[in-house]
Amino acid sequence: MTKVVLLDHGSGGRASQELIEGLFLRHLGRPEQLLDAAVLKAPSERLAFTTDSFVVDPIFFPGGDIGSLAVHGTINDLAMVGADPLFLSAGFILEEGLSLEELEAVVASMARAARSAGVCIVTGDTKVVPRGKADRIFINTAGIGLLPQGVSLGPDRIRSGDEIILSGPIAEHGLAVLSAREGLELEGLSSDTAPLHALVKALLSGLGEDLHALRDPTRGGLATALNELAETSGSRFIVFEDTVPIRDEVRFGCELLGLDPLYLANEGRLIAFVSRGRGKEALQILKEEGTNPESAIIGYVDSHDRAQVILKTVYGGERILPMLSGEPLPRIC
Amino acid sequence: MTKVVLLDHGSGGRASQELIEGLFLRHLGRPEQLLDAAVLKAPSERLAFTTDSFVVDPIFFPGGDIGSLAVHGTINDLAMVGADPLFLSAGFILEEGLSLEELEAVVASMARAARSAGVCIVTGDTKVVPRGKADRIFINTAGIGLLPQGVSLGPDRIRSGDEIILSGPIAEHGLAVLSAREGLELEGLSSDTAPLHALVKALLSGLGEDLHALRDPTRGGLATALNELAETSGSRFIVFEDTVPIRDEVRFGCELLGLDPLYLANEGRLIAFVSRGRGKEALQILKEEGTNPESAIIGYVDSHDRAQVILKTVYGGERILPMLSGEPLPRIC
Repeated sequence: MTKVVLLDHGSGGRASQELIEGLFLRHLGRPEQLLDAAVLKAPSERLAFTTDSFVVDPIFFPGGDIGSLAVHGTINDLAMVGADPLFLSAGFILEEGLSLEELEAVVASMARAARSAGVCIVTGDTKVVPRGKADRIFINTAGIGLLPQGVSLGPDRIRSGDEIILSGPIAEHGLAVLSAREGLELEGLSSDTAPLHALVKALLSGLGEDLHALRDPTRGGLATALNELAETSGSRFIVFEDTVPIRDEVRFGCELLGLDPLYLANEGRLIAFVSRGRGKEALQILKEEGTNPESAIIGYVDSHDRAQVILKTVYGGERILPMLSGEPLPRIC
Repeated sequence: MTKVVLLDHGSGGRASQELIEGLFLRHLGRPEQLLDAAVLKAPSERLAFTTDSFVVDPIFFPGGDIGSLAVHGTINDLAMVGADPLFLSAGFILEEGLSLEELEAVVASMARAARSAGVCIVTGDTKVVPRGKADRIFINTAGIGLLPQGVSLGPDRIRSGDEIILSGPIAEHGLAVLSAREGLELEGLSSDTAPLHALVKALLSGLGEDLHALRDPTRGGLATALNELAETSGSRFIVFEDTVPIRDEVRFGCELLGLDPLYLANEGRLIAFVSRGRGKEALQILKEEGTNPESAIIGYVDSHDRAQVILKTVYGGERILPMLSGEPLPRIC
């Protein structure tokens, strides 16, 4: 029995079948029938649908791996529009020569992440490309979620006066991946990768229509996510630098590597826009959900006459906080 | 303005936004709001869901390209369970340095293929990996389809006596891609890539419950698809070699390259299992759909006591037709 991925495994023939039966279905569960498409009962008429490809390097990093990340990332994209995630697909592009042991660790991690979040991986696909034509493993997950009656979240609902909530400390995923890639051993660093749908459900049920918009600040970090929302909603946000939670070890690691934590990716944090006066309640809800003792109100929506994010610095000054441009940190998710 | 894909384009920041706005949305259409997930009205309770990644090499080949292939492939997976394809996602993994002109040609081709098939690409994602870490462009498409009341197709419905229909001549996609890859100029070769959902709809409406199972013989070709169905249904198929339509130029190209057309991929053909006595009617329906003058009854289901595909050869002998094993033809789709 081979211990690495062979081109044969992508042929669609016998070897593909063995890989699917012996590895994928063993972890992800066996459907009643293996058909070209999964047949699903969707208990509502409003669905959310999203897709995300994961190319993170390295594929294992402190706090997670490409498998759990691929599950959490797509769950979170569904959660950000207020949907309950139900079904995921998993599309694998494997490089010839990848060790089957590593592949199995990734698939088992996906299975655990899906189970613990209560979603089902119901359909999949595997392609193998020759050595040197991909880098070990790329995973695409698409997801279907159920949008409850009356839920409508989006930047078009952002209003002047809205308070801006951040659900926890930032930059942990980005820094954990980068330091693992560079082979740095920084104490106490761990990705924040986590599913956010339970948090969203709690916010929706506690705040109702006063929850206006959600966004997970992934690639490009907090600064880029805020800029996107400012632009789509045509509004000006004021953010107070000293209120943005950043753990000491992350601050230290960022200084060491010359990185700005405001631009580093998060995979288990959300930004919420809530009606003026409901911010403290939102914090309470996040804190009751247990994992977010460091959530904070980081700013507010100032006006709708220009799309801009203003950072009030710790030194009392202010500056425009731009979107990420140039200096990419590739393959962070 | 750069003419190639840069790492920046995958940063999630300004350059990503420019690529999405200036290229993807221009071709694929602009949603009312750019959210983390598309919000959809699904007009029923039974849905089909599928995913497929495309890594074909070269990305342009006679009769198609990776873009149209990615749309057709996922539409066809939905069609094979009897679903009407409604929504697609598109996940791109781009290699740094890919020319934007080629990317645009691929995206425009996806848009055309989706429009002409009546499906909407509603959500997407783009990642960029450094030069040498992928090969130009990989595309994942996931798809959601609507399963009409009462439709239930699958290998479990295959019965002894069923006639086996093939909707057109085989091996054209596989041979077109392989010859393009090798730089061979074989006259008259063109991929058969095409959406099959209209054909399926016509078969369903004409044959009703007498249509038992469908499969598109993609990777691994007709022989592998038949073997998969024989195994899942636990039945023995008899196939008559001289009834399998193969165009002369394909037969010639296969001989030249030493390839067996029974194992080459198709991207616009289907195999249908229909009740005994309804085969001719099925052919009539396929012919009326216009594009399939060469559809044929290629065999029948003999018994349910062993899973096997028997080929009655043109010389009057018979042999077991095995599943593809070894000798992979990688990156054919």
